[in-house]
Amino acid sequence: MNIPIRQQIYNDAEKWIYQAGELIREQIHDNYQIDTKSNVNDLVTEVDRSTEKFFAEKIREKYPSHFIVGEEGYGDKVDSLDGTIWIIDPIDGTMNFVHQKRNFAISIGIYHNGVGEIGFIYNVMDDVLYTGIRGEGAYRNSIKLPPLSDQVNIETSIVALNSSLACENSRINEKKVQQLIKDCRGSRSYGSAALEFAYVAEGIVDAYLTMRLAPWDFAAGLILVNEVGGVTIQANGQPVNILEKNTILTTNKQIQEKLLDNYIDLK
Amino acid sequence: MNIPIRQQIYNDAEKWIYQAGELIREQIHDNYQIDTKSNVNDLVTEVDRSTEKFFAEKIREKYPSHFIVGEEGYGDKVDSLDGTIWIIDPIDGTMNFVHQKRNFAISIGIYHNGVGEIGFIYNVMDDVLYTGIRGEGAYRNSIKLPPLSDQVNIETSIVALNSSLACENSRINEKKVQQLIKDCRGSRSYGSAALEFAYVAEGIVDAYLTMRLAPWDFAAGLILVNEVGGVTIQANGQPVNILEKNTILTTNKQIQEKLLDNYIDLK
Repeated sequence: MNIPIRQQIYNDAEKWIYQAGELIREQIHDNYQIDTKSNVNDLVTEVDRSTEKFFAEKIREKYPSHFIVGEEGYGDKVDSLDGTIWIIDPIDGTMNFVHQKRNFAISIGIYHNGVGEIGFIYNVMDDVLYTGIRGEGAYRNSIKLPPLSDQVNIETSIVALNSSLACENSRINEKKVQQLIKDCRGSRSYGSAALEFAYVAEGIVDAYLTMRLAPWDFAAGLILVNEVGGVTIQANGQPVNILEKNTILTTNKQIQEKLLDNYIDLK
Repeated sequence: MNIPIRQQIYNDAEKWIYQAGELIREQIHDNYQIDTKSNVNDLVTEVDRSTEKFFAEKIREKYPSHFIVGEEGYGDKVDSLDGTIWIIDPIDGTMNFVHQKRNFAISIGIYHNGVGEIGFIYNVMDDVLYTGIRGEGAYRNSIKLPPLSDQVNIETSIVALNSSLACENSRINEKKVQQLIKDCRGSRSYGSAALEFAYVAEGIVDAYLTMRLAPWDFAAGLILVNEVGGVTIQANGQPVNILEKNTILTTNKQIQEKLLDNYIDLK
């Protein structure tokens, strides 16, 4: 992608994300005023839709040749990686939105001919914006993130995974996940895939493992993690398919092999 | 406890907590400047000790008749609940401190003749102070927390627990924990008992279950959760002993019985 064009897209996307975040905070605040409990499911549906619609309208007006992939139905039917594609999750971490009214994110990944060019993960309530630009690095509120440590091993790692992976399930050998939980320094679960990607990029979590993510859940995070020297693959070690649902392992490269060889055994 | 005296103690404790928080942030910031990786274990030990020492000196100077219970050795040997006891954890969430340099808290519970009078949980890096005063309510940065919802059931609950409880272990029947993880709306794990108590008090998590907490881990949280109508008990349903290590269930009362009857089976 042409660098000046990419910078223009970056500037527009960043501006729209801050605008959308402000709108979401207002909607949450107004809703608090009206009724703190009963409307929360309607609220998340409404905010999800209106936020995706907001981005779709902005993108179509400014970049009519670009494609949009989103969860809420305002996108295009995209089955090729050709051209420029915006992959959008207006609210990643819906359950957190409903239950906590924080710890959710806007996630936008922008791909050109299949290559991840720009990633944004915006923690709306904390007003923290993570960004990644291919070849230029990843940032947290404009502060550049350092490369991931090359001194990490399983015993010193914090691993993010939902505790359901340690329960009997149809996707992954739970006994090996249990062994991972015992062997690593600690496990965490935050309930937003986009934020968990951001934490891997920050190095405050060393790996994030999950059994099923849609493109809009990982499109931005993958770019951020790349930019600090991490890696994102399917849980069977294969490359991620950007346009499909995937199992996902995003991690510091130092522990990638050990995780795949010793702890991840898909059914 | 006499109300004007309690108010005085509250004011002093709050002031000292903000001062200690500022010192911790400075130490973390200085350490970042010097070396981001190698000194972090030394740093946490140093900060843990210096912060407890800071509180112990302030308390002994202003309230020489009070007792101090702490983890780091600056407290008293306390085996009676008589009098006024400050139960202090200078850094709750040590692993988060080391690995994330955030998501940890100062926790202080103040008890008088065995009754919890004042609780403070201070998320140092986010500058969020949770407080509870017996009979007066619980607060997040001075905004009063509403009573916990009376419309909660297991299926709509978010439960905080470490995923190790779902693994084979010597303390709790993991099969029943796995069933809880499947039946509830979602599980989370944040790595700081004090913050997990605060989230229960906020109602953004509906229950927190853990197999071993020291007095300084729960002394403040118990007071906060009480003030919003929640309950804190041992995981076998018995009352908590304030001066000993306990298993802990702190929860919205609506799901207390179901948790104890259907999902918590201690070994």
